[in-house]
Amino acid sequence: MLISQSQKNTVLCGRNFSSFSRRIARNCFAALKATLFSQTMQAMKWLDDIKWDDKGLIPVIAQEAASGDVLMFAWMNREALAQTAALGRAVYYSRSRGRLWPKGEESGHVQTVHEIRLDCDNDVILLKVTQLGHEPGIACHTGRHSCFYSLYKDGQWVVVEPVLKDPQTIYK
Amino acid sequence: MLISQSQKNTVLCGRNFSSFSRRIARNCFAALKATLFSQTMQAMKWLDDIKWDDKGLIPVIAQEAASGDVLMFAWMNREALAQTAALGRAVYYSRSRGRLWPKGEESGHVQTVHEIRLDCDNDVILLKVTQLGHEPGIACHTGRHSCFYSLYKDGQWVVVEPVLKDPQTIYK
Repeated sequence: MLISQSQKNTVLCGRNFSSFSRRIARNCFAALKATLFSQTMQAMKWLDDIKWDDKGLIPVIAQEAASGDVLMFAWMNREALAQTAALGRAVYYSRSRGRLWPKGEESGHVQTVHEIRLDCDNDVILLKVTQLGHEPGIACHTGRHSCFYSLYKDGQWVVVEPVLKDPQTIYK
Repeated sequence: MLISQSQKNTVLCGRNFSSFSRRIARNCFAALKATLFSQTMQAMKWLDDIKWDDKGLIPVIAQEAASGDVLMFAWMNREALAQTAALGRAVYYSRSRGRLWPKGEESGHVQTVHEIRLDCDNDVILLKVTQLGHEPGIACHTGRHSCFYSLYKDGQWVVVEPVLKDPQTIYK
């Protein structure tokens, strides 16, 4: 193939420019990669600080922010806690269903999360929440305000909280 | 050996009386045994109602009755819960030490128990307690009021509760 001198120059210049660009691009990419890696590590550190149990889970207590009532107890995996923090809404991990469980996905009884706290052993989470979807809030699948409605009295468990809404009308 | 008629009567009467007494005693003993068995079964039923995990434990949340603050999270086995109910003081099961852990045994930070509640799945306990031994109450081994002193903020855990007493002076 015959090419002119000007074509040769263009090709050489192109080669040089291309080589220079590639070097710049490589450096930029490396810097970007390092930054992203650092940011990701930083973003993950709070999750790494947690002592997940042998199933990769952590127990979670949900407490109503306004009343102080302990509403329920559930579990989270890493993804559930990351989503809870990102969305500001409680996302648990359902052990029985083996999948993420965005609280209220069926019932509409969503929990807005105001605070996420971790205990001294880094192995229990406390959420301060507002229980939405009903007034007063219903956290329990039985239609009660709180899951802790059975009180020990004289050697037996006594139900001491009313059903606020029939579960059959909650889960249609 | 020669014995008189009156002696014979006494012996016979003694035999009859002894036989009668034995029957009475047997019946009394059987009735007592049945009553005790029934009472024991009744006394145990509330413990049998609980869904203990595969290690024979149940998670326990301790909440300060007066303030509503969630103080700590621990575990109980059957014996710990039975003792807690009997004594009106929190007795946990220490998984790390593999034995009963009467709260405050070293620190003096005993918990008086006002209520024992069970959740809808029968697998979590909520205690309503008064935290004794210091004013304000110290439930945490770090010398803080509550174990949940780390707050999630902007991708990290921030300590938001003060140490009320140096742990070195608590655990001498």
